Amino acid sequence: MPANKVPDIVVGRLPLYLRALSQMAGEGKEITSSQELGGQLGISSAQIRKDLSQFGEFGKQGTGYNINFLFDQLKRILKIERVWDVVLIGAGDLGSAVANYGGFLDRGFRIAAIYDNDPEKVGQPVGQFLIRSTRNLIDEIRTQQIKIAMLAVPASEAQQVSEKLVEAGIEAIMCYAPTSLFVPDNVRVEYIDPLLHLQHMTYYLPE
Amino acid sequence: MPANKVPDIVVGRLPLYLRALSQMAGEGKEITSSQELGGQLGISSAQIRKDLSQFGEFGKQGTGYNINFLFDQLKRILKIERVWDVVLIGAGDLGSAVANYGGFLDRGFRIAAIYDNDPEKVGQPVGQFLIRSTRNLIDEIRTQQIKIAMLAVPASEAQQVSEKLVEAGIEAIMCYAPTSLFVPDNVRVEYIDPLLHLQHMTYYLPE
Repeated sequence: MPANKVPDIVVGRLPLYLRALSQMAGEGKEITSSQELGGQLGISSAQIRKDLSQFGEFGKQGTGYNINFLFDQLKRILKIERVWDVVLIGAGDLGSAVANYGGFLDRGFRIAAIYDNDPEKVGQPVGQFLIRSTRNLIDEIRTQQIKIAMLAVPASEAQQVSEKLVEAGIEAIMCYAPTSLFVPDNVRVEYIDPLLHLQHMTYYLPE
Repeated sequence: MPANKVPDIVVGRLPLYLRALSQMAGEGKEITSSQELGGQLGISSAQIRKDLSQFGEFGKQGTGYNINFLFDQLKRILKIERVWDVVLIGAGDLGSAVANYGGFLDRGFRIAAIYDNDPEKVGQPVGQFLIRSTRNLIDEIRTQQIKIAMLAVPASEAQQVSEKLVEAGIEAIMCYAPTSLFVPDNVRVEYIDPLLHLQHMTYYLPE
């Protein structure tokens, strides 16, 4: 991982800013402010200005941000002015829903293939894909030099599959399985587990 | 929302600790340490000790944490020693995958009902549920005093549906739609958007 001085929590907010800017652009807006962005995202305007200032000068005091310009700059910073190929492992209910989701390409990603280890699923269609066997997963990912994987397998299989992905050269894993993966330091993992969010919210609910 | 001094980012880590403890208990372990927990989660042991100390004294210097005890305490703090009813709105691919997911009950939640506004879906089965019409959504949620909703509707419908949920008395929304919701201050929203995670990770990938 490159030595980089911007705190990860700041990097993690950039995609949120990007999504809000995209929504504004879709509504035909051309200019926004840190106040407006913050209001939409529940983040203070000072935080937004501070976050963006880590990467350069994107607006002038008093005139706000040009939405398209800031959008393009954030895409460049996040390296999604290009489209990244992603493999999806697991063609169960969740994997199939992910495969059918149409929102990847607009936001910088393309599902290149979907894999499953169930012989009854291999060769079957899901969305626009035919499910591939995990048997040749390592070679196929390596040949295509794909760096990103989404993992939608049961928790009990997630570690083993992640080791194969690492061997195949994957450097970023988005894990839907409710478990922690042990991977080398050069591999990043982000987790999606709805229960973590639900349990976070109940803390604030009256009994 | 109750005035509470514990930073939200600390509260947000408790479900992660809980998940790791559950995994350890499942492996038959009885005692753990902040070092071991941290190693599993990629969080420093000092951070874990500091987080837990916000809520009390859960272990003795040098002897570590009793896993079952800490697990029960965290469940109590997060208010999931009970089971919360949750409504699920949207019976598309994603909503159906969520409805079929078996992992809620073990972790404090029970899907009470699934709703959709598509007349062709209403009355159809998904998992163990029959899809209900959103027509009576407000009354039904209010009658059952349900406080938590999961939103798996298209982004274009999310705001409108969230307003109905608020009217029905919902105070916590987990939103799968890739958009920001505007809700009153007493309503909490957590977002799940895989693209945010992917865009976060590409920042660290070599071009």
